[in-house]
Amino acid sequence: MSAGRSRYDQAAKTQRITKFLVAARESAIDLNLKRFVFLRVLVSSWLTLPFCALVAGPTPAQTQERADILISGGTVVTMDSSRRIIDKGMVAIRGDRIIAVGPASELAGRFQAAQEISAANQIVLPGLVNTHNHAPMVLFRGIADDMALMDWLEKFIFPAEARNVSPEFVQAGTDLACLEMIRSGTTTYADMYYFEDKVAETTNQAGVRGVLGQTILGFPSPDSRNPEEALKYTERFIQRWRGSSLIVPAVAPHAPYTNSPETLRACKGLADKYGVPMIIHVSETRDEVRQIKAKYKTTSTQWLEKLGVLGPNVIFNHGVWLTEEDLGIIRRRGLGVTHNPESNMKLASGSAPVLRMLALGIPVGLGTDGAASNNDLDMFEAMSTAARLQKLVSGNPAALPAEKVVELATLGGARVLGLHKEIGSLETGKKADLITISTEPAHAVPMYNVYSHLVYA
Amino acid sequence: MSAGRSRYDQAAKTQRITKFLVAARESAIDLNLKRFVFLRVLVSSWLTLPFCALVAGPTPAQTQERADILISGGTVVTMDSSRRIIDKGMVAIRGDRIIAVGPASELAGRFQAAQEISAANQIVLPGLVNTHNHAPMVLFRGIADDMALMDWLEKFIFPAEARNVSPEFVQAGTDLACLEMIRSGTTTYADMYYFEDKVAETTNQAGVRGVLGQTILGFPSPDSRNPEEALKYTERFIQRWRGSSLIVPAVAPHAPYTNSPETLRACKGLADKYGVPMIIHVSETRDEVRQIKAKYKTTSTQWLEKLGVLGPNVIFNHGVWLTEEDLGIIRRRGLGVTHNPESNMKLASGSAPVLRMLALGIPVGLGTDGAASNNDLDMFEAMSTAARLQKLVSGNPAALPAEKVVELATLGGARVLGLHKEIGSLETGKKADLITISTEPAHAVPMYNVYSHLVYA
Repeated sequence: MSAGRSRYDQAAKTQRITKFLVAARESAIDLNLKRFVFLRVLVSSWLTLPFCALVAGPTPAQTQERADILISGGTVVTMDSSRRIIDKGMVAIRGDRIIAVGPASELAGRFQAAQEISAANQIVLPGLVNTHNHAPMVLFRGIADDMALMDWLEKFIFPAEARNVSPEFVQAGTDLACLEMIRSGTTTYADMYYFEDKVAETTNQAGVRGVLGQTILGFPSPDSRNPEEALKYTERFIQRWRGSSLIVPAVAPHAPYTNSPETLRACKGLADKYGVPMIIHVSETRDEVRQIKAKYKTTSTQWLEKLGVLGPNVIFNHGVWLTEEDLGIIRRRGLGVTHNPESNMKLASGSAPVLRMLALGIPVGLGTDGAASNNDLDMFEAMSTAARLQKLVSGNPAALPAEKVVELATLGGARVLGLHKEIGSLETGKKADLITISTEPAHAVPMYNVYSHLVYA
Repeated sequence: MSAGRSRYDQAAKTQRITKFLVAARESAIDLNLKRFVFLRVLVSSWLTLPFCALVAGPTPAQTQERADILISGGTVVTMDSSRRIIDKGMVAIRGDRIIAVGPASELAGRFQAAQEISAANQIVLPGLVNTHNHAPMVLFRGIADDMALMDWLEKFIFPAEARNVSPEFVQAGTDLACLEMIRSGTTTYADMYYFEDKVAETTNQAGVRGVLGQTILGFPSPDSRNPEEALKYTERFIQRWRGSSLIVPAVAPHAPYTNSPETLRACKGLADKYGVPMIIHVSETRDEVRQIKAKYKTTSTQWLEKLGVLGPNVIFNHGVWLTEEDLGIIRRRGLGVTHNPESNMKLASGSAPVLRMLALGIPVGLGTDGAASNNDLDMFEAMSTAARLQKLVSGNPAALPAEKVVELATLGGARVLGLHKEIGSLETGKKADLITISTEPAHAVPMYNVYSHLVYA
């Protein structure tokens, strides 16, 4: 069968997916060994485990402090409040925390470390934060492109999910997604899918940090016959994972148009009961705006406000069609919004009011959305597209400059997820979630401005 | 000096560029050996040279035809008129030509080849055609971002060029650009720069195919004190390179607003005299539209039409602000237009009427533009952005589907450059300009549709 015809051949697709379930875990591991690793990603749990034995190990010389890892010689882009960039910098790590950041020349003598990693000719950056994903959907990557969101969801994705999504599917997909995210510099992501407990297990095992939302839908889903079942699953899921070092469990009602008022209230109640986030798609497409308008005579945001389900633990995905009044509510309630420019463009959903949100001080993060509407999980592409899209729609080439985009992809995303005290910048006391990026490939030479380099080159 | 400050430090920039001139050639070669090669690129000249000895070599068995290289086992995306995709296909090459394309099972016994390359788990695609570049400007990559085209040109690029551009600069930049293009799957590009003879030498040496335009400006440029000098340089340049296997020399008046009517006529005269293309920026920004309107009371296209300088050997770059009347002229005159979505978005120039041009049957190719306004030469990103941009501005997610985008980046670009009889598809008799792309990285698994895979994943 030629690939050109395969798009319309549902049976073949289903068969391929089933076949892939078996192969995906092996592939993921296999690929990991075979392919070139562009980015070395250090996530805190990985650092904790191999070096925890050192805590009881030999005492270093009195004049030196003990560190587990020193990363030295790179251009350290701290994203701290002064946006310090340190040429030939050093990051010192103990356990899963950063214990010092500064010029290598100043810090080198201060620490005795079990391991020193050279970051010469590399940029050292906080790990990227992908604020919106449906990780297991990598297995639906490219299954149905070049069509509108509602058609795509109702004719392809929901039926394909009903037939294929199982705990094994979710595990294989999350494995593959984590591999792709690690390769492309993402150390933290927010998710919304089914069997989220499997997503959590797999993400935790991969050493990736996740804010993982169990989906709640007003109709039967792959893991629940009704929203009541989904809510029960979610509560067990939260109980299992809260307090975990890498995983933050969350409640994820899919959207205002796919859930009843009662379910939305129950979701918020559950999120508040356990102090976890509530993640929801809001104002993604004109279709949604019309549906909500027809049903509730208002906007999605104002409908949710009326239901009393908004608050600082709520995360809005997309927000393409938010009105000025919606933005006022979002600001008052202290919500964060995820911006997914590649998905919004690909589905012709529109362009979110990112500049306006930033002007209002609303926390904004960047996301890829699921691979089925992107079709990858590469945050560097998300950064590049975010910058270009705002310039295009505002007609202002200075809009959303490179430095701001890097902020959205790191600290901004961390703020949206409520993790900005722990991650998003390279500062003493924060988790050692960081990545290094080579400045040696042809497309990265020369380097005049490190932010520009990360976003455009 | 921190990279954050470097953008405003002209002296440091100039110094760095000068320093880079010395290092760039070595770096390019060095990087070539050290880095992971994602794409293997076969350009026809490379094939011709090592195997020409075979022409006089031993005669193969009577039942088998002689080939130099067989590329077998990959998914061959032919881009022929029926858009044939061959699973486990084979491409047979003799000299610099394709002599057969088909299923490996059918062709395997037919040829005896000096070399067989396995393309298992790879896509075999015509080499990408980058229809608009200023190759040596890779050395200005990231020197000045987040500003408007006219500011960028007049305050940064023109002054930086006046101070730095020399034959050595051009050679180093072209070396680096060719390396980047080879790495990212481009086998043919169109250029517009200074000292284009050096661009040609370096491109030819790299084994890349080029339609290379010598820039003509109405004011002093790095290689000429006035347009007359530039025209003389161009004629010598054309005389040297016409008839070359890889290089097509061209005349490149920068734009209607930077050249006098006399110069524009002289450029077209020169192009016609030698039967070579004329490459020109047209209707890129609103600023240009205003300038031309103020000066000539018309549009750029209508001004050029009035001057009598349009014809099928003319290539328009950008065409963002073309009017319906302009498009009528372009169609009648048989011109091709290059579309550069990443540059147009980054400079907030606007969105070209790509769908309308395609509906009118105007040849359209894709380009990156120079690295200083992109900031890379990756045609895969150009494809991804082109598809998304047309969906966004048309509000139609089915607009410019993946297959069409791959066409623009291959055969469409070849048509714009007047090379569609030689390159742009994998067909018997065409030049063996082809690339192979691995389907094994995490971001490329699974593959339901090969076009979607190439454009979105």
